[in-house]
Amino acid sequence: MLNLYFAPGSCALASVIALEESGLDYEARRINLASGEQRSPEYLAVNPKGRVPALVTDKGVVTENVAILGYVAQIAPAACLAPLDDPFEFARMQAFNSYLASTVHVNHAHKGRGYRWTDDAAAIEAMKVKVPQTMSESFALIEEKMLEGPWVMGEQYTVADGYLFTLASWLPGDGVDRTQFEKVSAHHARMLERPAVQRAVALAQV
Amino acid sequence: MLNLYFAPGSCALASVIALEESGLDYEARRINLASGEQRSPEYLAVNPKGRVPALVTDKGVVTENVAILGYVAQIAPAACLAPLDDPFEFARMQAFNSYLASTVHVNHAHKGRGYRWTDDAAAIEAMKVKVPQTMSESFALIEEKMLEGPWVMGEQYTVADGYLFTLASWLPGDGVDRTQFEKVSAHHARMLERPAVQRAVALAQV
Repeated sequence: MLNLYFAPGSCALASVIALEESGLDYEARRINLASGEQRSPEYLAVNPKGRVPALVTDKGVVTENVAILGYVAQIAPAACLAPLDDPFEFARMQAFNSYLASTVHVNHAHKGRGYRWTDDAAAIEAMKVKVPQTMSESFALIEEKMLEGPWVMGEQYTVADGYLFTLASWLPGDGVDRTQFEKVSAHHARMLERPAVQRAVALAQV
Repeated sequence: MLNLYFAPGSCALASVIALEESGLDYEARRINLASGEQRSPEYLAVNPKGRVPALVTDKGVVTENVAILGYVAQIAPAACLAPLDDPFEFARMQAFNSYLASTVHVNHAHKGRGYRWTDDAAAIEAMKVKVPQTMSESFALIEEKMLEGPWVMGEQYTVADGYLFTLASWLPGDGVDRTQFEKVSAHHARMLERPAVQRAVALAQV
């Protein structure tokens, strides 16, 4: 049995989508970030980093979207959620996911989580100003160089699509007009047609 | 034939170590970050992100340490650089690597690369102040909860060890006394005894 800890509006939506697409039996467990539940002793025993997502398996816990996405694809091969038989293509998919995790998500975090990197109130405010620019630059790169279409990896739908969908859903809130990115917008609309994505959004975006 | 683009002093050392350990035939190609070579048209054609590392293979380019490390381990199975036959253990290794990429490296980057997230000179200075604290907190977590010992994953040496070694080598420059972390320090010393690490350091740290 799998248990996925997630929080509404967080990047954990990517892992929820992967699990919904996988056909695996799992339970979604909601963490209330606003009340600080991620720092409760109970949750820190699951994930000492105090972050979501965290996937609890019979063998132990997997954290970080990049790792969870690769893992879900590997343990549900019938769902064809990654190029599992081609190490190069798998690495290319993981490079895409890692860019989202270590660059795009980090850009976004400077809007609402600046306190992670400074205690200076003026600096926290200053960080927010550049978020529309950094998010636009990242999505311009995704649009022009990375998103093959119709899916991230081309013809094969993969776990990377749910991750891109999740971060692209943050653009309006980050002050970025998503419609300027034609391929990203078309991808977003295409994702919303998938029943698994609809279920994940209903579960994780509320 | 593999070509790895790296820069001295950068996180690309992790990929250099993996390749040196792998026994694979590869060529290391130096990028001069100080002169802005990472933004030259020639390099942007290799990696449009303008970052290192980038691994050029016969099939195409793989970027991002997390993806390169997993890939090198997969294409050099004889070197036993990852738990390749156990998806859970592989995911656990990639979760460790992803934490280094998206949290620890990002903490460090606020010392010298604050301009990525703000154009405000005072805010860039303010960001530098908290780096010793954020790096200390991350390494306390690694010390107490993540580094199993003697290697990151326990008894098996993996590509995660070279990545930890790389980021731990930044601690003194970040104003953090590495000796306060007993397991991390012992790991660092143990790494320096490996001939592959010695070759990588000689190549990539100059």
